[in-house]
Formats: sequence, C-alpha cells, structure tokens
Amino acid sequence: MENELIRKARELRSRGFTTGEIADELNVSKDTARWLTLQTTTSVSRKEAPVDFAINWESLGGSSSRMRYVSAAMADMALKYGVADVVLGIAISGVPFATLMADVMGAETGLETSLAVFHPVKHRKDEGAEGAISSNFAKVKGKRVVVVDDVITSGRTIAEVVEVLKNQGAKPIAVTVLIDKKGISEVDGVPVESLIRVSRLG
Amino acid sequence: MENELIRKARELRSRGFTTGEIADELNVSKDTARWLTLQTTTSVSRKEAPVDFAINWESLGGSSSRMRYVSAAMADMALKYGVADVVLGIAISGVPFATLMADVMGAETGLETSLAVFHPVKHRKDEGAEGAISSNFAKVKGKRVVVVDDVITSGRTIAEVVEVLKNQGAKPIAVTVLIDKKGISEVDGVPVESLIRVSRLG
Repeated sequence: MENELIRKARELRSRGFTTGEIADELNVSKDTARWLTLQTTTSVSRKEAPVDFAINWESLGGSSSRMRYVSAAMADMALKYGVADVVLGIAISGVPFATLMADVMGAETGLETSLAVFHPVKHRKDEGAEGAISSNFAKVKGKRVVVVDDVITSGRTIAEVVEVLKNQGAKPIAVTVLIDKKGISEVDGVPVESLIRVSRLG
Repeated sequence: MENELIRKARELRSRGFTTGEIADELNVSKDTARWLTLQTTTSVSRKEAPVDFAINWESLGGSSSRMRYVSAAMADMALKYGVADVVLGIAISGVPFATLMADVMGAETGLETSLAVFHPVKHRKDEGAEGAISSNFAKVKGKRVVVVDDVITSGRTIAEVVEVLKNQGAKPIAVTVLIDKKGISEVDGVPVESLIRVSRLG
C-alpha cells in the first residue's frame, strides 16, 4: 500500500502537480504527501513515516450509478438543513458529488438547485493566492449554499470556503462530505456532516 | 475520540459483550477492543495504544434513506458478478445492508433475491464454536450467494463465511462491504469488493 502511494505521489510530482494537489488526489495530509514524494519505493524510511491513513474510493468514483446513489445519501444529509439554492463543489473531487447532489436535491424539492465550483488555494503555487468561486457556474451572493467535498483531511479547505462565502454575502447552511478524517462538527458556525468518520487511534 | 471509544468499550463490556462483539460494534480489531476495555478515560497509556483507526458510520446507519442509497451502490458492486439467489448478511451490522441489497437486486433483476443471515464465530464465547447460517431466513445450498458486511477489519470473518458456504454446497460469487481496512481483493477465489478502502500508513 505504501509503495503504491509512493509510486503514485512521485508520478503526480513528475507531471508537475503541487504538494497540495498530490495531497488532494491521494486523500492524505500535505505533510504526508510531501513525505511520499521524497521516498523511493525500494528504500522507505519507515521510522520517519507520518502516521496517517489513506482513503481510496475508486470503486465508488469509477461507477456513475454508485456515485449517484452515494450523492443521494449526501443530499439527504444536506436537506436536513432546509432548501439550498446552490450546491458548491470543492475542486476537484468535490465537484462530481456536488453536481449529482444538486440534481437530486432539485428533483426532491421541486426547486431550482444550481451548481457552483470552488477552486481552493491549495491548488495554487503562489503563497499569496486566494481560493475563488468559478465564474462558469452559479453565483453565490445572497444564496443559501451547501458546500461539498470528498474527504476532510485537515479542515483548512472547508474553513477557507466558508470564509470566502461569507465575504461574498452568501449563506453557507451546511458542509457535507463523504469521509471526515478530522471529526469536525462545525466550521465558524456552519454544521459539518459526513457520511463516514475515520479517526486514528494510538 | 480515544476517550469516547474507551467509554463505549467499557460500557459494552459492562453489559456483557464479548471482546469480539465490542470489536464488531466499534469497527476495530480484537486487539484494539481488548486494549480499549482495559483503559480508564483518565489515564490512557498512549505509548501502548495499538495503531488502529476507528470507523464511525452512524450518520449513514441512522437514516433509512441513506442506508437505502448506499445499499443500492453496494448492490451495484454485487451485480457485476451476475444474478444472485441469496444475499447473506453477516450479523449484526451486515444484516441491514444485506436486507436492502436483496430488495434492490430483486427489483433490478426482476428475480427473487432472498436474504440469509450468518452468525460469525466471533460472537461466541466458546472457543470451539462454529459460525452458522440462521435457520430463520433463506437456505444457501446450491444457491449463488453474495456475502455482505459493513467493515472488513481482519478478514477472518469473511474467510469463515466463505468456508461455511462452500461446505454447505453454496456458490459464493462475491463479498461486498462498505469499508475495507485490509485491502483484500479475494478470499479463497471469491472476489471482494469494497466501496471505500482505508489503509494505514506509517
């Protein structure tokens, strides 16, 4: 498993991915991603290995019907907080879930539920960069927004999204994720719901 | 998190749960369950803590619509292996998934898909005990069977089920689980499919 992750991390690096993008792709922390890119598969310094765990949901992501079913379960978590105008997916992996959730929630409530997309700051090389909402999809100003991501690793990205939404005059009503590695229940007053929580012991 | 698990483990123990049942309920290994029951929440010997991670899917389990959606995604994994006559849920937590999967798979294929229930040996105090198929639900002899559980922790239980099924003249065609902590791809020639894989690093 470790070797497979090291191989993947090095391959992504060789294709020019930033550490943040590698962390995102492999569902590990930035520190773990950095460590992975520095190893070779033949000599892994196990003592220095960060204590982290990897999440692999390719069996889900590789099937559109499974994606639709699981997105419907996530939509059900979001609907606890009332009707949303916009479902905001965090790029990259939050976007397919958000797309299907908006579809399910629109059908469920009979009201237009639009998709918006957030580009998190971790995908920029520039240290002073800010996360931004894509102008290709729905606007968020004055809207009730549900934020969606695949995995919460450190919680930094969702904190960033909630701040940007509030600054833009949107009303974030909930954050929903597939898996939460941090056990977060709220971000700046906005409730966080996960379908599955994974937490380290020991 | 650790304290919460310790509290839960001790509470289950005080109600007479075996170590195997506690492991099952908390989705951790038997060793971890044993360790948890021996701690007090005020003085946790962190150095000796087993390296394990806890899975919490109560947000899913607490909602029948989310259970139905996720079971439909699991049914989709099972249907890759063709039509099944019986969906066998491993007691206790595999049973609700198996129940809904049998329902979804029957509707999907238009063919009768029955539920069966397996009592694993880990729930017995007696060391010489054997896992057994409940006589209250469908029989498995000569049937194409899909085995269902919530979480694979050590892989021992699914190996036990596959052996019992083969001994009883059934044809296990696949094992499907929500979460696999072991990264198992097959058991004695029977393919294992998980929606999500979680693996430890470091």
